[in-house]
Amino acid sequence: MNTAALEALRARYGERLSTAAPVLEAHGRDESHPTVHPPHAVLFAHSEADVVDALRLASEHGFPVTPFAVGSSLEGQVIPVQGGLSLDVSQLNRVLSIEPGGFQATVQPGVTYPQLNRQVRPHGLFFPVDPGAEASLGGMASTNASGTGAVRYGTTRDNVLELRVALMDGTVIRAGSKARKTSAGYDLKNVFIGAEGTLGIITELTVKLWPLPAHVVVVRCTFPTVQAAAACAVMVMGAALQPERLELIDEHEIHAVNAYEGTAYPEAPTLWIELAAPSASALEETLAVCVELCEDAGAQHLDTARSAAERAKVWEARHHAYHAMSALYPGHARLSTDLCVPLHRLPDVLGAAREACDAASLRASFVGHVGDGNFHVLFHAPPDDAATWAAIHRVYDDMVELALAAGGTCSGEHGVGLHKRGYLAREHGDSLHVMRGLKALFDPRGLLNPGKILP
Amino acid sequence: MNTAALEALRARYGERLSTAAPVLEAHGRDESHPTVHPPHAVLFAHSEADVVDALRLASEHGFPVTPFAVGSSLEGQVIPVQGGLSLDVSQLNRVLSIEPGGFQATVQPGVTYPQLNRQVRPHGLFFPVDPGAEASLGGMASTNASGTGAVRYGTTRDNVLELRVALMDGTVIRAGSKARKTSAGYDLKNVFIGAEGTLGIITELTVKLWPLPAHVVVVRCTFPTVQAAAACAVMVMGAALQPERLELIDEHEIHAVNAYEGTAYPEAPTLWIELAAPSASALEETLAVCVELCEDAGAQHLDTARSAAERAKVWEARHHAYHAMSALYPGHARLSTDLCVPLHRLPDVLGAAREACDAASLRASFVGHVGDGNFHVLFHAPPDDAATWAAIHRVYDDMVELALAAGGTCSGEHGVGLHKRGYLAREHGDSLHVMRGLKALFDPRGLLNPGKILP
Repeated sequence: MNTAALEALRARYGERLSTAAPVLEAHGRDESHPTVHPPHAVLFAHSEADVVDALRLASEHGFPVTPFAVGSSLEGQVIPVQGGLSLDVSQLNRVLSIEPGGFQATVQPGVTYPQLNRQVRPHGLFFPVDPGAEASLGGMASTNASGTGAVRYGTTRDNVLELRVALMDGTVIRAGSKARKTSAGYDLKNVFIGAEGTLGIITELTVKLWPLPAHVVVVRCTFPTVQAAAACAVMVMGAALQPERLELIDEHEIHAVNAYEGTAYPEAPTLWIELAAPSASALEETLAVCVELCEDAGAQHLDTARSAAERAKVWEARHHAYHAMSALYPGHARLSTDLCVPLHRLPDVLGAAREACDAASLRASFVGHVGDGNFHVLFHAPPDDAATWAAIHRVYDDMVELALAAGGTCSGEHGVGLHKRGYLAREHGDSLHVMRGLKALFDPRGLLNPGKILP
Repeated sequence: MNTAALEALRARYGERLSTAAPVLEAHGRDESHPTVHPPHAVLFAHSEADVVDALRLASEHGFPVTPFAVGSSLEGQVIPVQGGLSLDVSQLNRVLSIEPGGFQATVQPGVTYPQLNRQVRPHGLFFPVDPGAEASLGGMASTNASGTGAVRYGTTRDNVLELRVALMDGTVIRAGSKARKTSAGYDLKNVFIGAEGTLGIITELTVKLWPLPAHVVVVRCTFPTVQAAAACAVMVMGAALQPERLELIDEHEIHAVNAYEGTAYPEAPTLWIELAAPSASALEETLAVCVELCEDAGAQHLDTARSAAERAKVWEARHHAYHAMSALYPGHARLSTDLCVPLHRLPDVLGAAREACDAASLRASFVGHVGDGNFHVLFHAPPDDAATWAAIHRVYDDMVELALAAGGTCSGEHGVGLHKRGYLAREHGDSLHVMRGLKALFDPRGLLNPGKILP
């Protein structure tokens, strides 16, 4: 970014523009990457007009713009690898309206999902997508994030009704509808969801809200192998119990969670299954079916958590799994896969993935939103252990091939960012030319979050 | 289409190409339009290669291609208004695979949803989108069709996992994933869903299947006004009863249904609410809550249908509503709105729409997928009654304004086709330039289903 550009930005934004070293540094990283690529400047946007003008100045001066909110992305999405402006929307953090009767809320992109949930809870409603960090809704839409709730409520994509998006051509468009369904014209809304800020900048979202489930229980049961646990998960889905959550956590990860949280969960591959029903008696019926299924599938320890406090503790442990692993191996660098396969292929793909890790003597732990067929293998090793990292990447590569051969995807919920561009080329090599065309349509000069998604 | 083009098509396809007058005539209309625009030729495709070659020949010879399956579209989508080739995919009608454990099936675009349901039913599964004609899955994806099941299971968009699409550049791409969720790159799948064959031709679909609900009941209850019925529907949704279906049928339509089906439903605005539960006792609990709600909301006659035969009869009546009205006014031309508004705005928008009809003395009937906020006003009048048709279009225009002002859409499920292009301009005027850019990206010469969607 040249001096003229910086001066133009400063003239327009005054103190909302920062070039202070700690601010630049904080906008040069996300959860994925040890290396820091600071931007030349950070703009704290306070309005849609701020965003529109930033894109206009970027066009005029030819500098890149990379959106940022809380920096919890896992694939380097917010890292401004080519410098330029980091467009921080975290202060666009107002819930603009809540319509309980319409099951919807309209928010600015910097609103986090826990913040939204605190505001809608008094209406008996909640927003069900929980990627497990204090993620912003703009960021969640931009990566199509999901989490434990997707098995019942879908991903962020499924829960966004309407967007406002600022484009490089200077316009702001409204995509989608506040109605629950629409067949009016080309679906531009879904073009921007998962586009990681490379096609436009989301300035407003209308999202779906859901009634809080009335009666809830969490079943926790252990299995001799991750494959057996996955097979049970497939049976639970097949029995149409419609779990609210259906999570797999392996013995390594449970060990890390126990160490981090001070809990004493049995250290074996475990399913955590949350069930809900509109009445207490209906819940007992569903629970009985689920327990029978789990026992038939070879469950060993089986326990239930019923009170809100117990359940909250269980899910907090799950949400902290990633950090628990980091805490257990403090000097280690980490890498997480994000594979997702059709449900009927999950047990064999998971089994083969585990075998590949064992064969390479890698200390990897497995966690998964197994009701979706989505699992994460968390690799870790000292950053300078080149041999282990080479083995990790070999095994990871093989796993991607396995998942793609099973009809799956290299990313269930994290997105592509910097790190999965090679895998995207393997998965969608036949349509990269179309994706490039789409990028050129919205951002002909390549100024929006350059270096991401496309290989 | 010139002679060289016809000869090239005949050389490639032999008897699969038809120029017989009755065949051309049958491909020159859909359910919407009295006027017939026959194509120059009809190709009955038998393979993806047939489709790819048709697009190649279209490029070489510059003739338009309009896809066709069963011709049940309601907005003129399949009418080849500029002649050329009607690309009939109705014989691409094989179910290629069913994966019960993965809750998915892969089908060719000419497979109809009743055909798919007959094949997956033995697995205890069903495909829940039911637009109420013998629609093809390719056509349903192309208009993002829905129907009575959308309130619980979503629209066609929500139920398509993966597509294969033949493009004008000669390539065939795979968009989406067979996994339940993916964040891998730009979402091309949703670009083609609802695009009405103007961006590419769908040659294969992998769709979601769902477990058949175990215990089911249909509640039928009448109300003094459509507005009161709609208010009750909003209450049922708010109570999180998660109905399988939630339909409004007004007194005019019930009258037509009674005449057509020989039934004796009370001729008053009626809600038909289908509830399901995993056990008989859970169903009774849900039913009790629903009945109490309906009574509180002012329900008059209240009845239940429990047996599969009774329920089938009820839904058959609903699915025949459109034809019942045609049968009652045989010489009349018809026009159906397809407005959809956020749920909390439904009672007042519906009330105002009804008032507008009454004020103009129009004989219009109202039916609606009211759990989605989607309603159809079925206008009819003799085709040559210019004054009445002028009044109909005035009232329709006003209703569109009402729906858009409420945050809604001009099309909930029928699409835009020929007839709603003006309304699309009102609803998405701010993004028409982007939609045009998308069209130019996929079909730079404008040969794919020209004259549709874009005004």
